[in-house]
Amino acid sequence: MANQSFIPPQRILMGPGPSDVSPRVLEAVGRPTIGHLDPAFVGMMDDMKSLLQYAFKTDNALTFPVSAPGSAGMETCFANLVEPGDKVIICQNGVFGGRMKENVIRGGATPVMVEDEWGKVVDPGKLEDALKANPDAKIVAFVHAETSTGAQSDAQTLVKLAHQYDCLTIVDAVTSLGGSPLKVDEWEIDAIYSGTQKCLSSPPGLSPVSFNEHAAEVIKSRKTPVQSWFLDLNLVMGYWGSGAKRAYHHTAPINNLYGLHEALVILKEEGLENSWARHEAMHQALRAGFEAMGLSFVVKEGDRLPQLNAVTIPDGIDDAEVRGKLLNDYNLEIGAGLGALAGKVWRVGLMGHAANRHNVVYCLSALETVLSQLGAGIEKGVAVEAAMAKL
Amino acid sequence: MANQSFIPPQRILMGPGPSDVSPRVLEAVGRPTIGHLDPAFVGMMDDMKSLLQYAFKTDNALTFPVSAPGSAGMETCFANLVEPGDKVIICQNGVFGGRMKENVIRGGATPVMVEDEWGKVVDPGKLEDALKANPDAKIVAFVHAETSTGAQSDAQTLVKLAHQYDCLTIVDAVTSLGGSPLKVDEWEIDAIYSGTQKCLSSPPGLSPVSFNEHAAEVIKSRKTPVQSWFLDLNLVMGYWGSGAKRAYHHTAPINNLYGLHEALVILKEEGLENSWARHEAMHQALRAGFEAMGLSFVVKEGDRLPQLNAVTIPDGIDDAEVRGKLLNDYNLEIGAGLGALAGKVWRVGLMGHAANRHNVVYCLSALETVLSQLGAGIEKGVAVEAAMAKL
Repeated sequence: MANQSFIPPQRILMGPGPSDVSPRVLEAVGRPTIGHLDPAFVGMMDDMKSLLQYAFKTDNALTFPVSAPGSAGMETCFANLVEPGDKVIICQNGVFGGRMKENVIRGGATPVMVEDEWGKVVDPGKLEDALKANPDAKIVAFVHAETSTGAQSDAQTLVKLAHQYDCLTIVDAVTSLGGSPLKVDEWEIDAIYSGTQKCLSSPPGLSPVSFNEHAAEVIKSRKTPVQSWFLDLNLVMGYWGSGAKRAYHHTAPINNLYGLHEALVILKEEGLENSWARHEAMHQALRAGFEAMGLSFVVKEGDRLPQLNAVTIPDGIDDAEVRGKLLNDYNLEIGAGLGALAGKVWRVGLMGHAANRHNVVYCLSALETVLSQLGAGIEKGVAVEAAMAKL
Repeated sequence: MANQSFIPPQRILMGPGPSDVSPRVLEAVGRPTIGHLDPAFVGMMDDMKSLLQYAFKTDNALTFPVSAPGSAGMETCFANLVEPGDKVIICQNGVFGGRMKENVIRGGATPVMVEDEWGKVVDPGKLEDALKANPDAKIVAFVHAETSTGAQSDAQTLVKLAHQYDCLTIVDAVTSLGGSPLKVDEWEIDAIYSGTQKCLSSPPGLSPVSFNEHAAEVIKSRKTPVQSWFLDLNLVMGYWGSGAKRAYHHTAPINNLYGLHEALVILKEEGLENSWARHEAMHQALRAGFEAMGLSFVVKEGDRLPQLNAVTIPDGIDDAEVRGKLLNDYNLEIGAGLGALAGKVWRVGLMGHAANRHNVVYCLSALETVLSQLGAGIEKGVAVEAAMAKL
């Protein structure tokens, strides 16, 4: 295939993202490119902002998609809110808290780590201890929905605590946005970032962010320039801000934005709460199947994200062999474990367009077949039967 | 159109980019999303690298597309090569040298500006004076093809000078790559970045970069961490580097990469040198038409980029009115002037897929019509006739 057109295989994406992209979104992505200052495009940008406000449940004016993937959305929050010398409390219970720490260090600030076991939610008690011990802390950051484990922390409680100690909050909602309850204004989150390739089911490459007025004020009144020119919101808002006049900052990823816009239109058509309920229903069916198959969840009941199901790999079964067979024989992608969980768990996503009945049944059928082939002693048909009873 | 599907108008893009995207590339962008660690995708990544090496005329192993627009490609070069306290000589002859300066300052380093008038090429004599006066300079940076004016500097001579004084070089080739001669290895460029939405005619959102071994060594042996986690090449290369094992760093913009891959396949099918020749031929025809119409170029003959034609707006003609009419009445986008040239020039792009005969004739016809309507005293038909004689 050297230097020839690339025709991707038609996969079913049930890993930790990207998730299956709907034909409507793919069609939108392929529409003719127009200019980033074209009045028609600027009109779409305004509409995009209102749709993102809907998805985040916020009225924040400073709500838009960063022109790069979720990691750049994280960096946008940290680079704009953190100044050298600041102290930032980071609650880590998986991979992505570690990335936050890297962002803080590279910004010349001091991270204070509050660690919870991977697979557990963030413990508010530990956060409060850290807040008491660090009265000079400026920011509390945590991951709402840990993509590496499937744990869902109580964002509202953590934000309330942070505010009691006069800290701003930065929340990672990469995997939660669109898939499970997230209420930016009601929970009083100051700064939040997400991704497009999870529960919004748009291709990767953009990171929706939102900042409340308090966070926006902190950015405007910085003592030092933002380290990144590309991510400096004081400049980016000349392009994404409101008002008729949009100034060129960088060239926006036009076609990717078409895709995100269409994905958000689809989300609004379904209704945000209906989308949350669909993710939960599909999760319950998948869970019934997994349990019938004897697979156990990494995260305890009540703390689980419906859209990211991390389950323990049975003894004697080789992780890579199973995922390879699922991909090659059934065109089905599920995710591997990250960090300490590598080789020990599978991460099965039910995200956005991929959170549907076909996928639940297909995934259970394929996994049952492959595990049986490898002698895992799975009783035939029980997983699908258990799931079907819930669908 | 509130919260409804966005159907963009079908424009003809003859501004400074994005340029017209071919139907083949749009089709590629709309293909089914697959995972960023899928073996099929990893195979495409390897092929992409070889195609980018072809386009850059380099054997550099460290050649890949950054997962964000050209401004992030610029920042990738500066953030990885510059350390706090370094001195960087920047040759500025338009908007983008100013952006380089911002990158250097935000990296805690000291910029030394070598300024040339906008519309002029970078003067090697001035650079040599600056190199003599700053023996502690570590890097020389300049724009090969100034998108704000259409001036094409002599990259080979500037790089040779920089090397004589033991400086590394960072070259902005956002507008040159694929459209006019650029030879990374032969000219011994150390670090270079480009964009996809100019002469490659792929949607915006990616920035091809290339680093030679010397630059790669400097990055590996940094004393301080790269300020940006997202752009840190020491980490990014775990994903884009060679070898069978690709480690997750961030989620790549899958569908955008499909588009860039297809655009590069098209470039290779045509042949790089043939693409350069086509841009030059279309430029000569457009130029004949503009001159017949009485429009004069900002840049003197011999220093002009074929793909970016900046021409002076006739006295008494309102910039915005003309561009508005072209866009609304003829679906034709041409570019406005930037910075000091705002309101004084138009920037007409002939980039990639857009550098074709139809566009040359259509642009001249539309501009002639609009200028006549506004009483500019254009003799009818002479522009198209002059262009046709060259086509």
